[in-house]
Amino acid sequence: MAFINDHYLKLKAGYLFPEIARRVRQFAEENKEQAKSLVRCGIGDVTEPLPLATTEAMHQAIDELTHRESFRGYGPEQGYEFLRHAIAENDYRKRGIAVADDEIFVSDGSKCDCGNILDIFGHQNRIAVVDPVYPVYVDTNVMAGHTGPADDTGAYEGLVYLPCTKENGFVAEIPSSHVDLIYLCFPNNPTGSVATREQLGRWVNYALGAGAVILYDAAYEAYITDPSVPRSIYEIPGALDCAIEFRSFSKNAGFTGVRCGFTVLPRSLTVLTLNGEKKMLHPLWNRRFSTKFNGVSYIVQRGAEAVYSEQGRAQVKALINHYMGNAAILTEALRSTGLEVFGGKNAPYVWAAAPEGYSSWQVFDKILHDIQVVVTPGAGFGAQGEGYFRVSAFNSLENAGEAARRFKELRW
Amino acid sequence: MAFINDHYLKLKAGYLFPEIARRVRQFAEENKEQAKSLVRCGIGDVTEPLPLATTEAMHQAIDELTHRESFRGYGPEQGYEFLRHAIAENDYRKRGIAVADDEIFVSDGSKCDCGNILDIFGHQNRIAVVDPVYPVYVDTNVMAGHTGPADDTGAYEGLVYLPCTKENGFVAEIPSSHVDLIYLCFPNNPTGSVATREQLGRWVNYALGAGAVILYDAAYEAYITDPSVPRSIYEIPGALDCAIEFRSFSKNAGFTGVRCGFTVLPRSLTVLTLNGEKKMLHPLWNRRFSTKFNGVSYIVQRGAEAVYSEQGRAQVKALINHYMGNAAILTEALRSTGLEVFGGKNAPYVWAAAPEGYSSWQVFDKILHDIQVVVTPGAGFGAQGEGYFRVSAFNSLENAGEAARRFKELRW
Repeated sequence: MAFINDHYLKLKAGYLFPEIARRVRQFAEENKEQAKSLVRCGIGDVTEPLPLATTEAMHQAIDELTHRESFRGYGPEQGYEFLRHAIAENDYRKRGIAVADDEIFVSDGSKCDCGNILDIFGHQNRIAVVDPVYPVYVDTNVMAGHTGPADDTGAYEGLVYLPCTKENGFVAEIPSSHVDLIYLCFPNNPTGSVATREQLGRWVNYALGAGAVILYDAAYEAYITDPSVPRSIYEIPGALDCAIEFRSFSKNAGFTGVRCGFTVLPRSLTVLTLNGEKKMLHPLWNRRFSTKFNGVSYIVQRGAEAVYSEQGRAQVKALINHYMGNAAILTEALRSTGLEVFGGKNAPYVWAAAPEGYSSWQVFDKILHDIQVVVTPGAGFGAQGEGYFRVSAFNSLENAGEAARRFKELRW
Repeated sequence: MAFINDHYLKLKAGYLFPEIARRVRQFAEENKEQAKSLVRCGIGDVTEPLPLATTEAMHQAIDELTHRESFRGYGPEQGYEFLRHAIAENDYRKRGIAVADDEIFVSDGSKCDCGNILDIFGHQNRIAVVDPVYPVYVDTNVMAGHTGPADDTGAYEGLVYLPCTKENGFVAEIPSSHVDLIYLCFPNNPTGSVATREQLGRWVNYALGAGAVILYDAAYEAYITDPSVPRSIYEIPGALDCAIEFRSFSKNAGFTGVRCGFTVLPRSLTVLTLNGEKKMLHPLWNRRFSTKFNGVSYIVQRGAEAVYSEQGRAQVKALINHYMGNAAILTEALRSTGLEVFGGKNAPYVWAAAPEGYSSWQVFDKILHDIQVVVTPGAGFGAQGEGYFRVSAFNSLENAGEAARRFKELRW
């Protein structure tokens, strides 16, 4: 008889966004008129059209595939050289970071990479995640059998949770017990926090000392406006020896539905075999791509390449400015009602503290019922998210303005 | 200290196609003039442009993404309803097979699915592969830790290899020892064989009796010309209770570089938990998609949908006819030199027996040196492939014709 992967059965069923959808649906059924003017600031999905540089490049790529002479079938699993080069050159080498083209692995998105990366690590590693956390880091570890069951708060046995609180500026502190793999995400989803050079430096030093690996999710890098904030973990000396960086075209060029991202896996990164021998991770990740993946659509890779053209860069900048303008409006509106507000400066997420006595879900319900705006309850991201809610800046200017206007009407 | 996944270190380094590339490169360096007229019949990659129905649909999808009103961000991870419906309706329900839309999982390709499916199975399963075999089935099991090391013949400890030989028509027989997961691929890569309804029926009965699951790779289904040959394993009664089917748009619509495929995972398929409880696999696969994948590019999904339009169907048929015409030419040419030739009737692969005294690689070298044609040595697909070589029909008519002309000049 065939056996199932029992670890999946440990996963908590009630995922955040389905529960939000359920409550919104129920509200809409019970309040048909009011529901018509619902403004959604919940999900972290882009709303604005693709940059024209990328769509022109994709149209052209399709035309190439309609002619025998320019047709392309299977591409390199790890990505076309034109794109690996554009990424390594523009995102890294031009900023003084020595990343080679073949240390870039082009994928169909950061979410996939963050999950798949576990394939190349052993099951012995002790794993640290921040709290609040992007649920994918946790769930993929549960599925891989790296945890025990969840307790009543939703925390899984065996994972090390690192609290991110108002007191530490939502940047996790070095754990007191030893860990081998550490997920960090800056600019952070959901708190909108960023780490300073000094804070990241402490993490890199810890990893170098402990022989740990940092899994650094920089999907929101394009939103960093403060020039002193590191855009890549590799700006920190030593990080090329201990960190894997994940990036995406989803949140800069609006590729959430087009699907493209990449991993940087430096050749200098080594970890241990069971015999205690040091081995590079690079060939394992390369082998994983060769064996379990067949490359990103050629059409999409040409679109991603265009992000680095002069026209593409200008259009992406305009998109970022648009969303960050929304973030500023929303931040101001929430503050004006007396709320304590974080994030929203170098990230498209505004993280607001619920007033005394309100839980995350109570705030969610009140905002939905009083002003028909959908936000995301912080508790959905982990125990430390309780007492907070996230407001997404991904919206049209009109909708963000309307949400801001309504936030000002909130009475606690 | 972080630990590597040691199982990767068991993988044999010398993969088939890199070795072919190395030998071709060396030949070209040593024989510059002759190398100019090289004809490649080695790799199973399509050569002809995309059907216009699909490119028109993709152009239109890109246009949608350039306007705010029609922009789409994240889609459903399991695929858009329009595509899941088109697949379930056209490939299954219209052929009398009761597959629901939500039993279709749209992915970026069969190779990925064949590897990823192992995520939802336990490590206790006893796994059977055919020999010769598509290396992905084997390698993904090695990477997942389901095998011991490889022996001198390249066979991994713990896997059950089912020989496919001339004597059994290259269709594996039911194993004498118990197995839990069985990879079958029809039309077969590399042998070009197909299984009759009766042969598949024996496999389904075995699986139902043993509580085993058949992983059925039907990526080449479109090449079946004989109406009596099953196109889907679900044509066999009971298969919806014991089989997962993988399909692809790579080999019908030429999407090898565009990237789209799908898995059919029926809700009626159950396997055991460690406690011996029966559980559906469907929710696990669904959860895997939600957590480790973000859906296929919207652009690509619209392209795949167009495969089912009237225009798309006609254009795909023309492509298949083209490649099958090549297969007929190549088969005839090889036969005319006295070789014993298999496949090539319901599959784009011709499988030829090397003359007495020649190994696969000797035939490869002789064909390369004597007539400058690149084929694939059968030994690269497993021990039972020794003494055979594969000729791919994926080519222009001109190239296939030229290869056929040269095959006729071969003297053994």
